[in-house]
Amino acid sequence: MRVGILTGGGDAPGLNAVIRAFVKRATVQLGWEVWGIEDSFNGLFAERRRVWRLGPLDCRGLLARGGTVLGTTNRGDPFDYPSAHGSRTDRAAELAQAVRELGLDGLVCIGGDGTQRIAWRLMQAHGVPVVGVPKTIDNDLEATDSTFGFQSAVAVATDALDRLHDTAESHDRVMLLEVMGRDTGHIALEAGLAGGADAILIPEIPYRPGRVASKIHLRRAIGRAFSIVVVAEGAVPHALREADPAARKQALDDAGGAAGLAMASLRPLVDAEIRAVVLGHVQRGGSPIPADRVLATRFGVVAADLVQAGRWGQMVRLRHGVVDGVPLAEATRRVRPVDIDGEKVKVARAVGATFGDMA
Amino acid sequence: MRVGILTGGGDAPGLNAVIRAFVKRATVQLGWEVWGIEDSFNGLFAERRRVWRLGPLDCRGLLARGGTVLGTTNRGDPFDYPSAHGSRTDRAAELAQAVRELGLDGLVCIGGDGTQRIAWRLMQAHGVPVVGVPKTIDNDLEATDSTFGFQSAVAVATDALDRLHDTAESHDRVMLLEVMGRDTGHIALEAGLAGGADAILIPEIPYRPGRVASKIHLRRAIGRAFSIVVVAEGAVPHALREADPAARKQALDDAGGAAGLAMASLRPLVDAEIRAVVLGHVQRGGSPIPADRVLATRFGVVAADLVQAGRWGQMVRLRHGVVDGVPLAEATRRVRPVDIDGEKVKVARAVGATFGDMA
Amino acid sequence: MRVGILTGGGDAPGLNAVIRAFVKRATVQLGWEVWGIEDSFNGLFAERRRVWRLGPLDCRGLLARGGTVLGTTNRGDPFDYPSAHGSRTDRAAELAQAVRELGLDGLVCIGGDGTQRIAWRLMQAHGVPVVGVPKTIDNDLEATDSTFGFQSAVAVATDALDRLHDTAESHDRVMLLEVMGRDTGHIALEAGLAGGADAILIPEIPYRPGRVASKIHLRRAIGRAFSIVVVAEGAVPHALREADPAARKQALDDAGGAAGLAMASLRPLVDAEIRAVVLGHVQRGGSPIPADRVLATRFGVVAADLVQAGRWGQMVRLRHGVVDGVPLAEATRRVRPVDIDGEKVKVARAVGATFGDMA
Amino acid sequence: MRVGILTGGGDAPGLNAVIRAFVKRATVQLGWEVWGIEDSFNGLFAERRRVWRLGPLDCRGLLARGGTVLGTTNRGDPFDYPSAHGSRTDRAAELAQAVRELGLDGLVCIGGDGTQRIAWRLMQAHGVPVVGVPKTIDNDLEATDSTFGFQSAVAVATDALDRLHDTAESHDRVMLLEVMGRDTGHIALEAGLAGGADAILIPEIPYRPGRVASKIHLRRAIGRAFSIVVVAEGAVPHALREADPAARKQALDDAGGAAGLAMASLRPLVDAEIRAVVLGHVQRGGSPIPADRVLATRFGVVAADLVQAGRWGQMVRLRHGVVDGVPLAEATRRVRPVDIDGEKVKVARAVGATFGDMA
Repeated sequence: MRVGILTGGGDAPGLNAVIRAFVKRATVQLGWEVWGIEDSFNGLFAERRRVWRLGPLDCRGLLARGGTVLGTTNRGDPFDYPSAHGSRTDRAAELAQAVRELGLDGLVCIGGDGTQRIAWRLMQAHGVPVVGVPKTIDNDLEATDSTFGFQSAVAVATDALDRLHDTAESHDRVMLLEVMGRDTGHIALEAGLAGGADAILIPEIPYRPGRVASKIHLRRAIGRAFSIVVVAEGAVPHALREADPAARKQALDDAGGAAGLAMASLRPLVDAEIRAVVLGHVQRGGSPIPADRVLATRFGVVAADLVQAGRWGQMVRLRHGVVDGVPLAEATRRVRPVDIDGEKVKVARAVGATFGDMA
Repeated sequence: MRVGILTGGGDAPGLNAVIRAFVKRATVQLGWEVWGIEDSFNGLFAERRRVWRLGPLDCRGLLARGGTVLGTTNRGDPFDYPSAHGSRTDRAAELAQAVRELGLDGLVCIGGDGTQRIAWRLMQAHGVPVVGVPKTIDNDLEATDSTFGFQSAVAVATDALDRLHDTAESHDRVMLLEVMGRDTGHIALEAGLAGGADAILIPEIPYRPGRVASKIHLRRAIGRAFSIVVVAEGAVPHALREADPAARKQALDDAGGAAGLAMASLRPLVDAEIRAVVLGHVQRGGSPIPADRVLATRFGVVAADLVQAGRWGQMVRLRHGVVDGVPLAEATRRVRPVDIDGEKVKVARAVGATFGDMA
Repeated sequence: MRVGILTGGGDAPGLNAVIRAFVKRATVQLGWEVWGIEDSFNGLFAERRRVWRLGPLDCRGLLARGGTVLGTTNRGDPFDYPSAHGSRTDRAAELAQAVRELGLDGLVCIGGDGTQRIAWRLMQAHGVPVVGVPKTIDNDLEATDSTFGFQSAVAVATDALDRLHDTAESHDRVMLLEVMGRDTGHIALEAGLAGGADAILIPEIPYRPGRVASKIHLRRAIGRAFSIVVVAEGAVPHALREADPAARKQALDDAGGAAGLAMASLRPLVDAEIRAVVLGHVQRGGSPIPADRVLATRFGVVAADLVQAGRWGQMVRLRHGVVDGVPLAEATRRVRPVDIDGEKVKVARAVGATFGDMA
Repeated sequence: MRVGILTGGGDAPGLNAVIRAFVKRATVQLGWEVWGIEDSFNGLFAERRRVWRLGPLDCRGLLARGGTVLGTTNRGDPFDYPSAHGSRTDRAAELAQAVRELGLDGLVCIGGDGTQRIAWRLMQAHGVPVVGVPKTIDNDLEATDSTFGFQSAVAVATDALDRLHDTAESHDRVMLLEVMGRDTGHIALEAGLAGGADAILIPEIPYRPGRVASKIHLRRAIGRAFSIVVVAEGAVPHALREADPAARKQALDDAGGAAGLAMASLRPLVDAEIRAVVLGHVQRGGSPIPADRVLATRFGVVAADLVQAGRWGQMVRLRHGVVDGVPLAEATRRVRPVDIDGEKVKVARAVGATFGDMA
C-alpha cells in the first residue's frame, strides 16, 4: 500500500500529531509507504510538485509541535483554480493524474470543510480514493463531537482572559477580547466560561449594546468596577441581526473587527475606560494541549484503520467518545452552531454572564 | 432555602470552581443562603464547628484557583470515627443534629467515592437531604464520563514527560515517570498518549519486565537510544498479577513505589542508565485547565438545579456530553478501570507504545 | 511607625509582590502599621478617600498574583488635577493634609516615572516623606539596571512569537507582532532574541522597509518561506526619523499602530501574505515569572529598610546585582534607551536578525 | 576556519540555543565550517567517532528546544578513562589526534566545571585550542554572574511550589519539595523566594529541625495550618554540619535523599501530615525560559567572537551585564556558594522564611 497525506486550510494545533500517528501506524506496523504532499493539494501539481517519503524518523518531535510540517495553504480550490491571468480553471484532473503517476493507492486529507469537499469531489469525479480527517479550530463541524486544536485555542484565549482580568481589575476597566469564531461562537463560549467573562458575544446571539452596558453598570453598583467581555470574530449587534452576510462583514470591517464594533457600540453607553485586544493568529500556534494531542493521535490511527479496511470515501470523527468513520458525503454537510438553548449557554447565564440579549 | 456545601477527600483542580458556580447560581440568582462547611464533614462537629456564609464576593478569583477554600481532610468516616482513645464511634447523628441546628435544608457534598457513600448513608440513615458532586482526579468513576481535575493532572504529567524527553534524549537514558493511579491507569494512559511514552504501565495490565526491555532494545536498535516509560502508582509486574491487594501494596512499598519496582525489574534486563521521577502531589495543585474549569462550573450549576428541583439523593454527572443527575445509590457503586481492549489502548499500541504484555 | 503605600501608573506583574514583601517586613518584623491607599494618590482625596490597613493575612496569595490589589489609575497629576469643569487645579496640598490626618509618617510610592516625580515634588513642596519603588514594564529607567514585570512581559511576547512561528511556517507567511515599547525597544529586543525574530523594529533604530524586505527575500531564497518580525509600539520607518514626537504619533495612529505602519510599508515590497498581531494589554497581566517575583520582593524589603533608616526621598533600585537606594532627585531624570551599539543588538545581528538599518 | 563543538556534563535548558547561536554566527556570517561532536569528548574517539557538519538548517527550532542535539554523557574523564577491564587509561592524546585528523582549528566546549577542566588540560597538555562556554544549572560558578538554564530550573521548581501550595493549604499539610543543588542552594533560595516558601534548607546553612518545627508551629498558631519547605539536594541537619562529604552523602542516601532526611528529622517534632516531592530530572528538561534563551544566545555568539579573535584558552562569562571572555585557568577554580550574609538570604528572612538556623 502506498498512501499520500496532506493538510489543508488554516493550521490548528494537532495537525502534526495526526501525521505522526498515521505515519507510525502505517509504516512501522502495517508496512506501507507514506508520501507527504506539501501545501495541501498544490504539492501535487506538476509545476510545484513537492512530495517526500515519510518514515518514523520524520515523526520525531511532531507529537508536541504546532503547525504542520507538510505546510498548508488557501491557494484555491483545484476545481476552480486561479490562473495567472485572473481566470479560473478546473485542474482536478491533474491531481488525479499525479496520484496515478506517484503510484498512490489513495490520499488521506486532513483539513476543514473546504478540504473535505474537495477530497470528496476528487473521489466522485476522478476516482481518487480518499479518507478525510476533520480539522476545524472552531469546533463547528456537525459530523464530529469534537476536533483537535479547539481546546488548545480555548487555552490561549483563557490565558489571555486571566491576564486581562488582572489588569482590568487594577485599572477599573472594561476589557474586550476578540477571539476566533467567524461563524460560530464555540471558542468564545468555552473561553468565556473558563475565564469567567461577564459578557460573551457570539454570532449566534446578536447582542444589544444596552444590555451589555447594563451588566457592566450592575457590576459597578456592587463594587466590581471592571468587566471582561469576550467577543467572537463574527459577533454583531442586534441591529445587524437581519443583515445578510456581506453586510455583516462590511460592518465588521468598517469597525476594524468585532471588538472594534463592540467597543464603538458600548462607548456611548458606558462611563469607563474600554480597551480591546484581538488575539488573532496567536490562537492557532503552539504545542497542542494534551487532550488535543490524544484526539489527534486517535484520528491519525483510525484514518489508517479506515484505509486498511478499504473504507475510502469516509471521514474520521468522534461520536459519543468513540472515534470511527462516517461517509464524507454526510460529513461535509453542516456547520454546528452554538446551541443557544443548550446547557452551556444556560450555565454561562447561571454564573452571571450575559450574551447581550438579556442584561 | 439554606444549603451547606463541603469538599471531601483528596483535592483536585476545579473544586473551587464548583463552589463558585454553585454559590453564584444559588445566592445571586436563586436568592438562597449558602453556608460553607470546612474540612469535609468535620466542620459540622460541635467541637470543631467551622461554617461560614458564602456570598458572591467570596467567589472572587476562585474559578482559576487550585485547591479548595473550604479545606478537606481524610480524618475519617463519621460513621466510624476515630476517637482519642483509639476506638471508633458512629458520630453521624451529630452531623444530622448540626444540620438541623444550622437550619440547613440540605448539603451539597463534593467529593470522591468515600464522600458520596457517606453522604448517601447520611440521607438514608438520618434523613439529611444531600446532593453529590463527583470528584476523582483519577477519572475512574463508572457513573460519570468524566470528572474535573483529571485533564489538569494529565497536563502536569504530560509536561513532565515532555521535559524528561529532552533530558532522556540528551543522555541516552531510560526515564520512568510515576503518575497517580493507585487502582486505575487513566492518567498514565492519557499522559502516555499525549507525551509519546514508549511504555505505559498500568494496574489493569500487569507488565512483563522482559517485554518492556525488548521495546527499549528495539528502539536502541533503530538508533533511538532513549526511552520514556510512564508508570501508574498501582502498576505491578506480571509476577504479582494474582497477588491480593495487600501483597501488591507490600511489594510496592518495599520497592519505594511503582517506579521503584519497575526500575528494579528492568535494571537487570536493560543496558542503559535508568532514572525515575515520582510526580506526587504536584499533580493535584495548580490552576485547573480551561476544560476542567468549564466542567466544574457545569457541575456546580447543575448541583443547584438538582437542589432547586428537590432532587435530593442524586449526584451530578456527565453522560454523552450532557450534565444531569443520577441516583447516589447507583453512582457510588463502581470503579471504571481502563478498558484494556478499548480504543485508547489500541491507539497507544498503534503508535508503538507497549503495555508490557507484548513487546 | 505608620506608613502608607500606593501603586501608580500602568500595572506590571510584581506590584502585588512588592506590596506583600513590604507589608510582611514592616508589620510582622518591624511592628509598624501599614495603610494601603487605593487608586494611586487619588485614594487620599477627601471625596474619594479609600485607605485600609494591611496586615500579613491580606498578603495571602499576593506573591503570585498579577495586577495590584491597591488599584491604580492615570486619573491625573495632583499638581495639575483635572476638575469637573475642565480646568486644572493644584491639589497636592490636600494630599499632604490627608497624610497628616491619617497620621502617616510617610508614603511608599510604587510606580513609574510620573509617580516618582509626583512623590518627589510632594516631599519637596509639602514635606511629605516618601520612598519610591520603580515600576516600568518597559525596563527603561536609567536609575535601575532592571525593573520587575519586564521579564514577565518578555515571556508573554516570546510565547506569542513561538506560536506565530508555527503558523507562519505552516502558511509561508510574514508575521508581525507588535509588543509594548512606546519610547524604547527593550521588550522587542529581548523577545526578538528569545523568539528568534528575523527582524526587530524598535524606536531607537528607524527602519528602512526595503531592508526588512531584503531580509525576508533572502530567507525565501534559502528555502525559509516565512519570516517573523517583532515591532515595538513606537517603531517608525526611516522616513519619519526626523519627525517630531507628535508627527510620529500621528503617523502611527493613522496606520493603526506600529504593526499597521510596518505592514503598510512592507506590503508593496514583499510578495507574501503578511499578518499582524497586536499583543496589547495581555502583556501587563498574569502571574509574574519567578525572577520578577524575586526582584519585586527584594524591592519591597529594601523599601522598608530605607524607611527604617530614615532615608526618605530615596528610591529603591538594582545596580550590579545589589538592591539599594538612590536619591529620587536623580532617579527620575532619565530614560534608558536600547544601546544601539551595545552587545545585545550586536548579538541579535550576529544570529541573523535585522533592525531594518541593514538588510 | 574549521571548529568543533561539543556539550558535556548534565544537560541544561539553553544548550541548543548556544549551539544555534554559535553555528549561525560562525557559518552564515563568518563562513567557517562547524562540526558537531556527539556525546561530549567521546564522539572523537576512533571506536565511536560521531561528528557531523552543522549548518544553519540544522539549527531550525533549536532556540526553544531543551536538551542538546549533540548528546552529552558522564562516561568519564579522557585523562582517566574507564576501560573495559575496569582499569583506567589516559586517552587524551587520542582526542588531540582526532582533532588533527578532522582538521579542526579548535574546539568549543560547552559544559560544567568538569568539562572546562578537561578542555583546559587538553590545551595545556596536548595543544588543542579550546574555548569554553560555562554550563551549570546550579548557577554556582564563581567565574560568571549567571549561567543559562538556572532560571528555567527555578521556574520549574517555582511552578511545583505554587501547585503544592494549593494542596498543602487544602489539606493543612507540611509539604517538602526537594530541588537540585548538591553543593549549593541557589535554586532552592531563588525558588523559595519566588514560591513563598516558609523554610528554605540549603547546604550552606545546616538546619536545626527544631527551628524549622518552630516556624511551622508559629504559622499554625496564627491560623496558617500548612507550611511549604524547599530543600536543596545537599541540605543536611546541623548535627551533620561537621561531617565530611562522604558521611553527609551516606546520611542523605540512607534517608532517601535530602527531603527524606528532612522529613525524618521533622516528623517527631511536628504534629501535622508531612509529604515530600522530589522534582528530579524534570528540572533539567523543557524549553528554556526567554532569559535563558537570550543568555545562551549571547554566550554562543561571544564564543565565536573569542575564536575569531584567536583568544583560545578563554571561557565565555557574564560579568556586570556584559558577556566577555576570561582565562580558563581562572574560570574553573571556584564554586560560588550562596552568600549566607548576602542580600537575598536577608530578604528571604525579611519576608518570614527560616533557614533552620533561627526559628
